[in-house]
Amino acid sequence: MKTDIAELLRGVAEVLLPDELERRLEAGRALVIKAGFDPTAPDLHLGHTVLINKLREFQKQGHAVKFVVGDFTGMIGDPSGRSKMRPPLTRGQAEENARTYAAQIYKILDRDATEICFNSKWLEALSAKSMVELASRHTVARMLERDDFNKRYTGGQPIGIHEFLYPLLQGYDSVALHADVELGGVDQKFNLLVGRELQKNYGQAPQVVMTVPILEGLDGVRKMSKSLDNCIGIAEPAAEMFGKLMSVSDQLMWRYFNLLSFRSSAEIEALKQEVGAGRNPRDVKFELAREIVARFHDAGAAAEAHAGFIERFRKHAIPDDIEVRDVHIKDDSVPLPQLMRMSSLTGSSSEAQRMIKQGAVRIDGEKVEACDLKIKAGSDHVYQIGRRRFQRIRLIKS
Amino acid sequence: MKTDIAELLRGVAEVLLPDELERRLEAGRALVIKAGFDPTAPDLHLGHTVLINKLREFQKQGHAVKFVVGDFTGMIGDPSGRSKMRPPLTRGQAEENARTYAAQIYKILDRDATEICFNSKWLEALSAKSMVELASRHTVARMLERDDFNKRYTGGQPIGIHEFLYPLLQGYDSVALHADVELGGVDQKFNLLVGRELQKNYGQAPQVVMTVPILEGLDGVRKMSKSLDNCIGIAEPAAEMFGKLMSVSDQLMWRYFNLLSFRSSAEIEALKQEVGAGRNPRDVKFELAREIVARFHDAGAAAEAHAGFIERFRKHAIPDDIEVRDVHIKDDSVPLPQLMRMSSLTGSSSEAQRMIKQGAVRIDGEKVEACDLKIKAGSDHVYQIGRRRFQRIRLIKS
Repeated sequence: MKTDIAELLRGVAEVLLPDELERRLEAGRALVIKAGFDPTAPDLHLGHTVLINKLREFQKQGHAVKFVVGDFTGMIGDPSGRSKMRPPLTRGQAEENARTYAAQIYKILDRDATEICFNSKWLEALSAKSMVELASRHTVARMLERDDFNKRYTGGQPIGIHEFLYPLLQGYDSVALHADVELGGVDQKFNLLVGRELQKNYGQAPQVVMTVPILEGLDGVRKMSKSLDNCIGIAEPAAEMFGKLMSVSDQLMWRYFNLLSFRSSAEIEALKQEVGAGRNPRDVKFELAREIVARFHDAGAAAEAHAGFIERFRKHAIPDDIEVRDVHIKDDSVPLPQLMRMSSLTGSSSEAQRMIKQGAVRIDGEKVEACDLKIKAGSDHVYQIGRRRFQRIRLIKS
Repeated sequence: MKTDIAELLRGVAEVLLPDELERRLEAGRALVIKAGFDPTAPDLHLGHTVLINKLREFQKQGHAVKFVVGDFTGMIGDPSGRSKMRPPLTRGQAEENARTYAAQIYKILDRDATEICFNSKWLEALSAKSMVELASRHTVARMLERDDFNKRYTGGQPIGIHEFLYPLLQGYDSVALHADVELGGVDQKFNLLVGRELQKNYGQAPQVVMTVPILEGLDGVRKMSKSLDNCIGIAEPAAEMFGKLMSVSDQLMWRYFNLLSFRSSAEIEALKQEVGAGRNPRDVKFELAREIVARFHDAGAAAEAHAGFIERFRKHAIPDDIEVRDVHIKDDSVPLPQLMRMSSLTGSSSEAQRMIKQGAVRIDGEKVEACDLKIKAGSDHVYQIGRRRFQRIRLIKS
């Protein structure tokens, strides 16, 4: 078994306790690596894959990945970071969502080396007495120390008593699986530590807890999230995915390499040096975009998306070397004519409106039809007036 | 079915909602009357019997008494009024205690018309899923509004999460039994109301909640409690029980009549009128003492205890009409010589000590041997020096 601790630790937010991880890895046996998934949002985006990629790395190094679908705990809903109670998921919904999950994770994980477990298997078998015993392992005060629960309690938002059972039940998953390592997002730390404690209570060696960071969305600032409209879904069409990846800043590109690429740290370092030596970052971004698109579609689709991307730029004769300009706004969006005035593409908003009506304005090569088009904060487009005036604008909410 | 609402309501602390009780009684069917018992203190004293007497009254009027032994919930322990977590009762202990209970309650209840239920019967059958569902019926905030939990939470005393399950589980007993009325002590009101709410949640007509008062102990002030040493255990020897009942004040006697006697309110009223008309209260107290002793022993034992009590007084020639004197102290007890000086039985403590050494001092007819004897607050004894000097002293802590 080849162990590469540096790759296992690449990009992680926190490890408790790293020495223990090292000790268990050195023992040479296949470790049980647990990660739990709440089957409520089965449409994965790249943000969710940071954790799955880490599971893949453990898997590559010979460890046993247990992908726990919380179909039982999903009836409660993870209260982590929540500001209110969630409507409980029905069993049917949980199962349906779990199937969707499974289909998606095998784009990353080795199907033959992954065990998908449904926590209803052991949690449903818990007797009422065992539930009482489990509940006795934690105090109300320690639960209410949690930031999310505390905010809700002090803010007068109801917390169901079953929500206090959630951390215990998902922690019991670690007991049932004899987990060596549990992975989760940084917002899961409390839950992961409960699992650690329960293992101690049940006479097991407590698991190593490893948290992965939250991936930034396309805007490079806020976390990738469907509701923030800054995410790349792994089921998106190849061309769309490719285009979105090409729209990230050069800085964010390296973050994505670190957390999303399967290239080794050494390979990524080499790419950085090439850029340092004058290679166009856009070309390196092409490599990232092709890798990611190929992962969720295939190499052919990635090549096609790449070609299509270049073609679109060529067709509309968008130069490769347009200067980027950051425009800061206070709202979530700004009307196009106003943005054109702000960025000095036109002298006034009314001039911009005239240009649009004449059909002389394009965004990323596409002709703009509506004068009242709103441009969202977080966007990054090439604006064009007539044949020769180009401006790439990153719109930032500040 | 004969219904006498006045007797059902005699002495109760609170009824929620009395109209609903009346409506159900008028319907003419046998109501399901629930009372839950935590099998932790199987040695019943008269204080516990206030509730059981009320069950008996319902039973007399044709209703179905369900005496619920909380063998399942006993594993948690009722947190009501507790200032700290209780060590869980083992199953064996709970069962043993339940047997002791059963033996005692049939001194009051009609064995053939009483159903003893163990709540493990339905609670153990609850699935993990049902437990989660049950827990979802109540919020953390409402639990923490409870005075006992609130004091512990704010005082930094740990509350186990399983303790939050207690009110819900015992409340579920009402659902399982389709209870029409639940009886409990005033300290149980919160629990009883949870049962009411759960029944609503589970689509049942919510039970009427009836609380009975806490019985005062022999001192007439504090609640009857083993730890306060002011109680009459129902398993105590007949003579002891008789003597203790005879020691209560005339005022407390009427309270005991109301809550402990099976005489009708009309009969008790008649006794009151007799005393008002000049009958010696001591003779009425004899009737109370005989009734209670006969209940827990038999009529013969009661008669014997009565005769023994009279004989003891006669033998030591204690007059019937000794004046009572209340002596107030600040501590829990006072040395006998000091008490004798305080009550002017002797001129000084040293004189009292001399008298005791000479064997001239008796308490309730028994010769005192030790000069350092301490007399407890709450006691009521006849003190005697020589043949002719008597003083009855009630020692009150103030």
